[in-house]
Amino acid sequence: MNDGPHRVLVSRATRESHRELLDAAAAGHAVQWLLLDEQDAGAPQPVHAAFISRDITGLSTKHQPLEALSACYAVLRASPDLAWVQAHSAGADRPIYPELRARGVAVTTASGANAGVVAATALAGLLALSRRFPQLIAAQHERRWAPLVGAGPLPPDLFGQTLVLVGWGPIAQALQPHLALLGMKVIVVRRSAAPAAPGVETVSHDQLHTVLPRADWLLLACPLTAETRGLVDAAALALLPAGAHLINVARGEVVVEAALTAALQSGHLAGAYLDVFEHEPLDAASPLWGHPGVIVTPHSAGQSAGHAARVAAIFADNLGRWLRCEALAHAVA
Amino acid sequence: MNDGPHRVLVSRATRESHRELLDAAAAGHAVQWLLLDEQDAGAPQPVHAAFISRDITGLSTKHQPLEALSACYAVLRASPDLAWVQAHSAGADRPIYPELRARGVAVTTASGANAGVVAATALAGLLALSRRFPQLIAAQHERRWAPLVGAGPLPPDLFGQTLVLVGWGPIAQALQPHLALLGMKVIVVRRSAAPAAPGVETVSHDQLHTVLPRADWLLLACPLTAETRGLVDAAALALLPAGAHLINVARGEVVVEAALTAALQSGHLAGAYLDVFEHEPLDAASPLWGHPGVIVTPHSAGQSAGHAARVAAIFADNLGRWLRCEALAHAVA
Repeated sequence: MNDGPHRVLVSRATRESHRELLDAAAAGHAVQWLLLDEQDAGAPQPVHAAFISRDITGLSTKHQPLEALSACYAVLRASPDLAWVQAHSAGADRPIYPELRARGVAVTTASGANAGVVAATALAGLLALSRRFPQLIAAQHERRWAPLVGAGPLPPDLFGQTLVLVGWGPIAQALQPHLALLGMKVIVVRRSAAPAAPGVETVSHDQLHTVLPRADWLLLACPLTAETRGLVDAAALALLPAGAHLINVARGEVVVEAALTAALQSGHLAGAYLDVFEHEPLDAASPLWGHPGVIVTPHSAGQSAGHAARVAAIFADNLGRWLRCEALAHAVA
Repeated sequence: MNDGPHRVLVSRATRESHRELLDAAAAGHAVQWLLLDEQDAGAPQPVHAAFISRDITGLSTKHQPLEALSACYAVLRASPDLAWVQAHSAGADRPIYPELRARGVAVTTASGANAGVVAATALAGLLALSRRFPQLIAAQHERRWAPLVGAGPLPPDLFGQTLVLVGWGPIAQALQPHLALLGMKVIVVRRSAAPAAPGVETVSHDQLHTVLPRADWLLLACPLTAETRGLVDAAALALLPAGAHLINVARGEVVVEAALTAALQSGHLAGAYLDVFEHEPLDAASPLWGHPGVIVTPHSAGQSAGHAARVAAIFADNLGRWLRCEALAHAVA
């Protein structure tokens, strides 16, 4: 694929934390490691492959890349022979990835690396809403003992409630057994209407509207694609029963945020757990921050101590495949 | 057991909401229903049996009985031929119950009726702490986008962590499969050291100290008994690894609250989810309300819309047994 050594861009933290893993993956091949912080912003050295690890993204959002990430993008754009980029995220919807793929660059994700953690976070949100934690924690902040009994209708039991689960990737598959244990009825919505698992009611995206009227909960755990962008719009929200809840650990753009805000403000939706937003960081003026039934977290559902090592292992595995000219794992189609 | 009709005390709400159920249970027997709100406080009519339903307890706590509950207690104390009292709660540790049992009155609980809901609430607390919801919700209240990345060590994955589970009643048994799905190692502590389930490490209460040093999480879901009162004292807390978390959905008196407060304030414990307290309501001056790693809820872990019907069914079943002079279900030994 090129004549000299394979020039691979990584962060200093990646090189230093995973030296043995990377050297083992590169053994027998001529690999030159280029560290991002040694690149000259004015005249970056071109690379053939790059690993955009979590520490490079840092506090950048999709909409606001900070310095290290911008420097990384500059190197990629100045590398005409770039062949492969490994992302740390489960999705590859940041604008750089379509741009690179349009150039013919292979993009691989770390799909699954944080699925267990994101599923646990989604379950935390569902249970917290179901058990009225937003209301109880607000009372806690006022040092006020305010039991649920005697304060209006008690929260319904989850047992017997219906949850519409959009997506059937690793996150959804990790969630489903918990939902079954809680006695919830799960309806899966995905690209194909083939049953997600034996006995699991499944419909395709274009049939979403037919199942929404049965949904006490709508949980989004799908990738952002042309099919899912704007899937949950005003019409979809209006089909949910009054008092339903939304959970979004997918991508903000799957939901039309203005419509969601209106449905919450009118009281049609009882509440929501939102980790992702149309624009991140969420604007301080957004009414979502202050709605009493809404939990807002800052796109942190998958942030955990174990994530970096799992992503590095995926990168090392793909590095070996790339050096041997084999098919890459988790390639974006 | 007596010559005239069986006089049974219930609340008006119980009689009106469950009339068919109660009439079916009493069919073929002479039962006179006495409604609590028709009792004369100065000269209560003696009863033979009573159902202390959730609406009678209302907002009373164990330490602060309010009017309806005090009126109910007055009837029980003025009933020399009282034979049986059905409680709505899973435990019978309110002072009235030992007092009645000392008089020879049978006391039955509604053990299990809210176990699924309490287990879901305990899981909500565990996941919320694990995913740093107290910190993230505090940031939400300030409309501040503050990801976990870049703000100190990331939360560890639950996968591979160890949880010491005190109790093996319906709540603990509902929790255990969720903990297994999350990849957590569970050690059960209960009266007997016989394995709680195949492959589940189990020790008896007097061996608690031997397993605490391995506990990332200590979760209390046991009844309050002579064995469990004060079980989690300063010595027990000191044996937990630094950074461990406590979850208490059992009874406040299982924990020495001053020792817990000290362990949180010193930073030895990272956080806690507490639904129960030594004295309820929790005093507004308690430092537990304001600790950044603590979630406080007002003994509401089991409060759900489905509970009343499940408890009424237990009462009706026991009423039939009592009228037929059969052994009662969920009798306190």
